[in-house]
Amino acid sequence: MDKIIYDNGYDRKAYAALGNRFLIGNGLVGIRGTLEEYTADLLPAINLAGVYDKVENFREPVNLPNALYSYIKVDGNNYRLPDLKPASHKISLDYGHGIFMRSSSWTCPRGNICLETRRIASMDDVNLIVMELKVSADFHAEAEIYTGIDTDIWDLNGRHLEDFSIINEDIIHYEARTHEEGIRVVMDETIEAASDCEITSVREDGRYLHRISFITRPGEAFRIVKYISFDTSKTAADPVCSSADVLKRSITLGYEEVMDRHMSVWDRLWDNADVEIKGNDEANTALNYSLYHLMSIAPRHADNLSIPARGLSGQTYRGAVFWDTEMFMLDFFIFTEPDTARKLIKYRIDTLPGAMKKAAHYGYKGAFYAWESQEGGFDACSDYNVIDVFTGRPMRTYFKDKQVHISAAIVYGLCRYLDWTGDMSLLDDGGAEMIMQCALFYLSILVKSIFNDYYEIRDVIGPDEYHERVNNNVYTNRMAKYVFEKAAKILREGYLDISDSERDSLIEGFEDGAKHILIKKPDENGIIPQFDGYEQLEDASLADVRSRLLNDKEYWGGAYGVASDTRIIKQADVVTMLNLFADDYSLDTISRNWSYYEPRTEHGSSLSAGMYSLLACKIGNPGMAWPFFLKSARADLSEKGKEWAGLLYIGGTHPAAAGAAYMIAVEGFAGLSVKNGELTCNPSLPKEIEEISFKIFYKQQQYSIRVSHDSYSIDEIN
Amino acid sequence: MDKIIYDNGYDRKAYAALGNRFLIGNGLVGIRGTLEEYTADLLPAINLAGVYDKVENFREPVNLPNALYSYIKVDGNNYRLPDLKPASHKISLDYGHGIFMRSSSWTCPRGNICLETRRIASMDDVNLIVMELKVSADFHAEAEIYTGIDTDIWDLNGRHLEDFSIINEDIIHYEARTHEEGIRVVMDETIEAASDCEITSVREDGRYLHRISFITRPGEAFRIVKYISFDTSKTAADPVCSSADVLKRSITLGYEEVMDRHMSVWDRLWDNADVEIKGNDEANTALNYSLYHLMSIAPRHADNLSIPARGLSGQTYRGAVFWDTEMFMLDFFIFTEPDTARKLIKYRIDTLPGAMKKAAHYGYKGAFYAWESQEGGFDACSDYNVIDVFTGRPMRTYFKDKQVHISAAIVYGLCRYLDWTGDMSLLDDGGAEMIMQCALFYLSILVKSIFNDYYEIRDVIGPDEYHERVNNNVYTNRMAKYVFEKAAKILREGYLDISDSERDSLIEGFEDGAKHILIKKPDENGIIPQFDGYEQLEDASLADVRSRLLNDKEYWGGAYGVASDTRIIKQADVVTMLNLFADDYSLDTISRNWSYYEPRTEHGSSLSAGMYSLLACKIGNPGMAWPFFLKSARADLSEKGKEWAGLLYIGGTHPAAAGAAYMIAVEGFAGLSVKNGELTCNPSLPKEIEEISFKIFYKQQQYSIRVSHDSYSIDEIN
Repeated sequence: MDKIIYDNGYDRKAYAALGNRFLIGNGLVGIRGTLEEYTADLLPAINLAGVYDKVENFREPVNLPNALYSYIKVDGNNYRLPDLKPASHKISLDYGHGIFMRSSSWTCPRGNICLETRRIASMDDVNLIVMELKVSADFHAEAEIYTGIDTDIWDLNGRHLEDFSIINEDIIHYEARTHEEGIRVVMDETIEAASDCEITSVREDGRYLHRISFITRPGEAFRIVKYISFDTSKTAADPVCSSADVLKRSITLGYEEVMDRHMSVWDRLWDNADVEIKGNDEANTALNYSLYHLMSIAPRHADNLSIPARGLSGQTYRGAVFWDTEMFMLDFFIFTEPDTARKLIKYRIDTLPGAMKKAAHYGYKGAFYAWESQEGGFDACSDYNVIDVFTGRPMRTYFKDKQVHISAAIVYGLCRYLDWTGDMSLLDDGGAEMIMQCALFYLSILVKSIFNDYYEIRDVIGPDEYHERVNNNVYTNRMAKYVFEKAAKILREGYLDISDSERDSLIEGFEDGAKHILIKKPDENGIIPQFDGYEQLEDASLADVRSRLLNDKEYWGGAYGVASDTRIIKQADVVTMLNLFADDYSLDTISRNWSYYEPRTEHGSSLSAGMYSLLACKIGNPGMAWPFFLKSARADLSEKGKEWAGLLYIGGTHPAAAGAAYMIAVEGFAGLSVKNGELTCNPSLPKEIEEISFKIFYKQQQYSIRVSHDSYSIDEIN
Repeated sequence: MDKIIYDNGYDRKAYAALGNRFLIGNGLVGIRGTLEEYTADLLPAINLAGVYDKVENFREPVNLPNALYSYIKVDGNNYRLPDLKPASHKISLDYGHGIFMRSSSWTCPRGNICLETRRIASMDDVNLIVMELKVSADFHAEAEIYTGIDTDIWDLNGRHLEDFSIINEDIIHYEARTHEEGIRVVMDETIEAASDCEITSVREDGRYLHRISFITRPGEAFRIVKYISFDTSKTAADPVCSSADVLKRSITLGYEEVMDRHMSVWDRLWDNADVEIKGNDEANTALNYSLYHLMSIAPRHADNLSIPARGLSGQTYRGAVFWDTEMFMLDFFIFTEPDTARKLIKYRIDTLPGAMKKAAHYGYKGAFYAWESQEGGFDACSDYNVIDVFTGRPMRTYFKDKQVHISAAIVYGLCRYLDWTGDMSLLDDGGAEMIMQCALFYLSILVKSIFNDYYEIRDVIGPDEYHERVNNNVYTNRMAKYVFEKAAKILREGYLDISDSERDSLIEGFEDGAKHILIKKPDENGIIPQFDGYEQLEDASLADVRSRLLNDKEYWGGAYGVASDTRIIKQADVVTMLNLFADDYSLDTISRNWSYYEPRTEHGSSLSAGMYSLLACKIGNPGMAWPFFLKSARADLSEKGKEWAGLLYIGGTHPAAAGAAYMIAVEGFAGLSVKNGELTCNPSLPKEIEEISFKIFYKQQQYSIRVSHDSYSIDEIN
């Protein structure tokens, strides 16, 4: 099936959503699917991975200048959107090859005018962006293309690039520095055009442009190709030189070759990643479109990056890496690109010093990973993440200081990688130390009362962020136990180069922690209370709680939110724990908890649906899993994501939901797992699909797997 | 000096404040200083001690029907306030004898009309209220007095007395039951009048009245006396009978004898309580007026009552007993009425089961006393004590569940009593058990981290209620240590009848707790941080923080209040700790902390000034103590108390401030203390006063003490 989505017709209000939906990216940049003539107010962006900058209290990734900026003039009139209503308009995304395409036509008294573009963020050379632009008319006219670099760009929280200089010649050469660290940012842009035109340099405010003047010829499009290269002093010793090299090399290769090389990388990736769902084209498209997003934002080129929670779609959530990566995206990469998975884990290992610094700051030992991790593990999360709609005041939130489960998620991710790839080298490469430091962190946050024989973890936020500062969140405690067990195991296996006495003492501590940490038990109805006192909260329905809102933008959680004193939760919490530790519980208990918590879940996070879906498959109920699968897979295809919080843009893509959709398909519907060292499937296919097939890597061997309602096969690929 | 205050002239807006300022009481009832003709909207009340009733979510003390209700008619016209502007008006309080007096005159075309009343809540028979009422005119006129029982009374949160029945004859007999527990409430009222009048019974809506018709005679007042008796099934097996007995007896005694007996009780009390301040009449009046309030509300008659935080002035704060009693009022009674002090402590001993129930409810051992204690130790404090002015929603507060320092205050009160009276019988009478259970409670809330060698108390509210859910509040932790030490001591002294092994184990536990509990130390500037992380809060000035208010009624504390994330505190906290444990610290440290915290204190509680004043005396700076003394002593004389929270009346008297004023005079200015078993004074007299003299009891011996700037004397009284 062709991997194409498109949007037909023009709706000027859709610019924010379409920018996400038609995003292209190559792991270094994400380019929003906005139109070439769009200025900052319509949210175009070339979002750069790994370069952060702080303006006032906001530290967020840097957007590159908009080197795609272009518009056309015919007979002296501008033809651009949204100013002039088009006769036809269509944008398309070939998500099989990461190509954005646009086609617009306008009717004027003398005839029809058409603009077509096609752009890529090269997968072959990630510092390269290429765009083809074609103008045609069915009459002879004087026409101009204006194209170049727009320095007046969209930033969520103010300007990051200052003191820029531009040389506006055949090559438009841009240089600037970031505010905070003075990182040099360099960009070059040039065009190739047919010979029968005149090219001059013009400037329009902050836009530095080529003006290409030509005469249109009926039946023949006028075509230019833009080459855009960039680099920064963060990754290149001499970014001016390296950007120039990329530009030169790509011009030498030429448009066709550049495109071929780009597409063959995509083909190679898809060969490992494609999941075919037979019997349901919609689901097939949604799932593979989700995988496209994961593939577009994976930092294959770098050794110091992971994937931000909103991918490379913008500056929302500060371009930071959350637990989303380890808990929701990692499996896809472990199964289809183990080398990329290794990089994601390595990012966490390399940022261990940042996590240790954070732990020390709060008076703990070991490693307390950043809730919102930027480079070096710096925690970009603020103490004030929500604005009170009633007073306009920032509200103290505790995501950064109390969501201690983050460190466990990272250990969990590493262990998933180890179990599936068998690549134990990562343990010697810092992984063992990381596990040990995370275990030490959890040991240091345990508290014990004199009269109890168990340890507690008090004053935390679990996955459900609506309930702050709770005690003994069962997810958090169970994850801590998991970390203790893993740490004791790797120490026993001799992975860390420490003295025997130190080793013995650590093992004793971790085993004591694992043995005595309180894991809340199911009550007489089989329900596991999410935290101490959860069962005493008001049991109001979701509809009741929603009806108490005085303002549809008000925060549900915090100290006084409508959900805070009720059992209504934001997202899967106990259900997430049950997913990870299903073997600890009977099917009956799992089933009771699913049914208890689902109606009490607002699903206010895109991470929620996936956990409910996966667990539904585990209890053999794919019918319950199905709508949550579709919700996850369609997170970036539908219009339903929260894009605005008041006047603040919080939209973007949802790679964790994309990763969850993959996990549901492969681990839920197909039921893939390892039993006694062997791959096996426990299919739980919903009636809506006939068959599902995909390839995965397990311990460096690739397998082809096919699962239908009555059989399945697992075949080695040679 | 006469003990009289008065208010001259009539201001109709002053009814709420004057009701408090001219309050009379006898420990069983408090009668607000409102005018006889006032109906419910002007807040008259006969507030009854010890009878509580719940309406919806509000459990508050019961107001008796208004049996003082009276007004007069002359020539068919009503003469009553505020309807008809008076020619002159004056109310007075003889606070030496607990007598409220009122005198009003009106001018009409035919001449002048005068109404005079005088009322007491009998100290001799606490179930008796007596009022004299005189009407005169300087012309002959047809006049009527309407007087009886107004059943339409002021209640803060709805009606408490239901199904009442009235017999409206010579004796107006009222019976009703409370909502919640069906407690029977009985009241009888009758009048004595001169013979030349006609008396009939009338009813005006909810008012059941005698109409006394007579002809006025110039130069001669027409006089009646009202006798009012009451009782409830809470204290009498047959309240109808016992109320009738009181009425009969008082009529037999007659007005003069009733008044004589009442006044001689007051004289006796004053003989022990009077504090004479020479050289400053204003301070002398303010202080003794404060003592009057304490004397008016002491439950000498009962064995199961203590003193509510607003005395008997109304239903504010649910008529409940707070730590105010032990920390601020108790010393006055220990020094002047040790038997009454014993009753106040005994109330806590007797409510130990309630405190143990509360501890168990929260999962703790031992005794967690009520933050707002009603009968039996029931905690009347709500989980929601504040209304958000922006949303109108109740805000979750933690006064009830996290203000754990309450139990220590009670132990502290008992130990003060023991130390000063030498009456160790209270230990055998349940006191030892109480101390042990409080210590057990603190032991059960200690937590320890694996890597620390000390215990912590986390997630509490200290005296400063603006900062919720803090860790290691130094006041709380130091008080817990104190309780551990006291408990270990009484156990070592053999006060509890338990096995040796149990005793040893408890002693070991308490001594371990005392030794290892974290008491935060002064920092490099000598400042003791109020709790973990206090020093990292914003150091905004009080004026800055006040300027951030968007609504002058908004709550400063809670999760998002203007003070919450700053160092601005509501009331003395570290300073309270330093007062109680001054011997643990150098004068320099005490002085630095006083100077550091005072400008950061809003003094949003009437408990605050007293602690600052006392500590200023301890560091030999009575000049700094003086304004805080005046503020405490004048708490109920000035207009500055917070009386309204939005539309809610939260006014009333401030007996804790009154008690604090006494402590400042006696323990601060006079510097009275016990050293090596001997009374001694360490005078710290402010320049505003010349001499201070008073009597106190110490170990059953009364002493007369006189302190001037250059000498002092302590003399035994034989």
